[in-house]
Amino acid sequence: MTGRVTVLTGGVGGAKLVLGLCHSMKAEDVTAIVNTGDDFTHHGLAISPDIDTLLYTLAGKANAAQGWGREGESWTFMQALRSLNGEDWFALGDGDLALHVLRTQRLGEGEALSSIVADFASAWRIAAKILPMSNDPVATRVQSDEGELEFQQYFVKRRCEPAVRAIRFEGAAFAKAAPGVIEALSDERSRAILIAPSNPFLSIDPILAIPSIRRALTETTVPVVAVSPLVGGAAVKGPTAKLMRELGLEVSATAVARHYGELLDGVLIDERDPPACLDVPNARADTLMNTIDDRKRVAHAALGLADSLRG
Amino acid sequence: MTGRVTVLTGGVGGAKLVLGLCHSMKAEDVTAIVNTGDDFTHHGLAISPDIDTLLYTLAGKANAAQGWGREGESWTFMQALRSLNGEDWFALGDGDLALHVLRTQRLGEGEALSSIVADFASAWRIAAKILPMSNDPVATRVQSDEGELEFQQYFVKRRCEPAVRAIRFEGAAFAKAAPGVIEALSDERSRAILIAPSNPFLSIDPILAIPSIRRALTETTVPVVAVSPLVGGAAVKGPTAKLMRELGLEVSATAVARHYGELLDGVLIDERDPPACLDVPNARADTLMNTIDDRKRVAHAALGLADSLRG
Repeated sequence: MTGRVTVLTGGVGGAKLVLGLCHSMKAEDVTAIVNTGDDFTHHGLAISPDIDTLLYTLAGKANAAQGWGREGESWTFMQALRSLNGEDWFALGDGDLALHVLRTQRLGEGEALSSIVADFASAWRIAAKILPMSNDPVATRVQSDEGELEFQQYFVKRRCEPAVRAIRFEGAAFAKAAPGVIEALSDERSRAILIAPSNPFLSIDPILAIPSIRRALTETTVPVVAVSPLVGGAAVKGPTAKLMRELGLEVSATAVARHYGELLDGVLIDERDPPACLDVPNARADTLMNTIDDRKRVAHAALGLADSLRG
Repeated sequence: MTGRVTVLTGGVGGAKLVLGLCHSMKAEDVTAIVNTGDDFTHHGLAISPDIDTLLYTLAGKANAAQGWGREGESWTFMQALRSLNGEDWFALGDGDLALHVLRTQRLGEGEALSSIVADFASAWRIAAKILPMSNDPVATRVQSDEGELEFQQYFVKRRCEPAVRAIRFEGAAFAKAAPGVIEALSDERSRAILIAPSNPFLSIDPILAIPSIRRALTETTVPVVAVSPLVGGAAVKGPTAKLMRELGLEVSATAVARHYGELLDGVLIDERDPPACLDVPNARADTLMNTIDDRKRVAHAALGLADSLRG
């Protein structure tokens, strides 16, 4: 067995776990497979919110208080944009624009997203591998009581207010996994494959909707462990609980584990959660991740559960 | 005769004259036909330096001390760009990016530059008309002792250091004047057509290289008056004097007037210039434009000369 750990992750919550792993083991042995279903084009710029949250978090540049974007960001661009009557519902920080402008330029020259992200990570001396789930476009679409909405229209512009009926991932069925993704998931000598405590429906499902990724997860003998995104039986932030209710699900770790179904070998749930009736091996820990010590603790607990499953 | 005045102009020096005109007459009667030979694509963004200098100057947003860009600009984008190893020889301010991002987006959607610029000017309540010389691409290329350079490579990256042998305007021969340009130049009831004290070779020649513009200037009966860019026999700033020497010309208002040749009906030269032997009607004034009063004075002097030529 090598020390390699691969994590499927969305943005904020997942990035905290990935950072915890990087502080708990050799960071170069950590591979994050990141949701790109939230990616979109705004003002002609190619924006990859979850990828960028990983970059900022692992480079120590994330704005912790705000929960997204860069520390020490400035907002002169948005002021000027407003003065020109530009659409301003999606906040683009001045420093954040550097990622978007360079990414857009290089994508336009035909470069793959995965290669661009690898360069960004290298420039910021990030040892962990950050892999977009795919270099092909996959777009999360939310079917709501206001009709079908693009993800950012639902998430940012409409602040998750519309009631969700279903979610689909346009392009996923034909998307190839990005280079390195299947290799990481198929490396039988890995220590664990983790599913981060990101939103299962909006952040993890797009990754699982790529056929080759789901197949690799189904076939691997490496323990697959999910960290439940619920803490004390509720979502830490974001629309997870509201979404689960709208989709007719119980807001519980049991429902999360059932959602992932046969892909899972184990689930880590919060110690404050109500007693659960789980048909998959599980462990409990304090899964709230405010400090770096919290993040290391959750990483340790998830890896400990995976190790115990290896038998 | 109407009060209409049309000005051919480059960036900084020319914008000062246009502002002086806007403070000396009804601003909505001023039409600026602006050089776009300096326009280029950088990091995938469509940048129009002279157009933007006009926008900033006429909107009262120009950085007077610096001579280019916006007042109160911030530079977070450039810091982030450098951290990602992005090319940083061309400075893109955070607020300045709003013009570039919106312009790039709208050009990409097929909109004409002239229509985009009109919207920007309207958003900033600029009463004067700002017209790009053309919506077609025209690119100034500098043939130098280091080979042929793109304009911004010569002007910004190489700081005008290479010795210039010749200048050409790629695309100009086939470029159409932007909507409104020929109409402005052909309005026989106009009071004057002015050539701003911009660099004749780098900022005015690209405009004159468009066949329909040159023809309209040749055919008009409206007085055409140039303001010499030389003050006290030297260039105020920029490479005008160095360039004239490299092109084998005397650094004098006489040489500037001869360069424009039969297009000119008169030339306004600085009162500190040495005695000149001019074969075109001329007047002298203090043409240095530091304050707004200076700019009004030069505008008055140029219009006075034009009025006197109407006979």
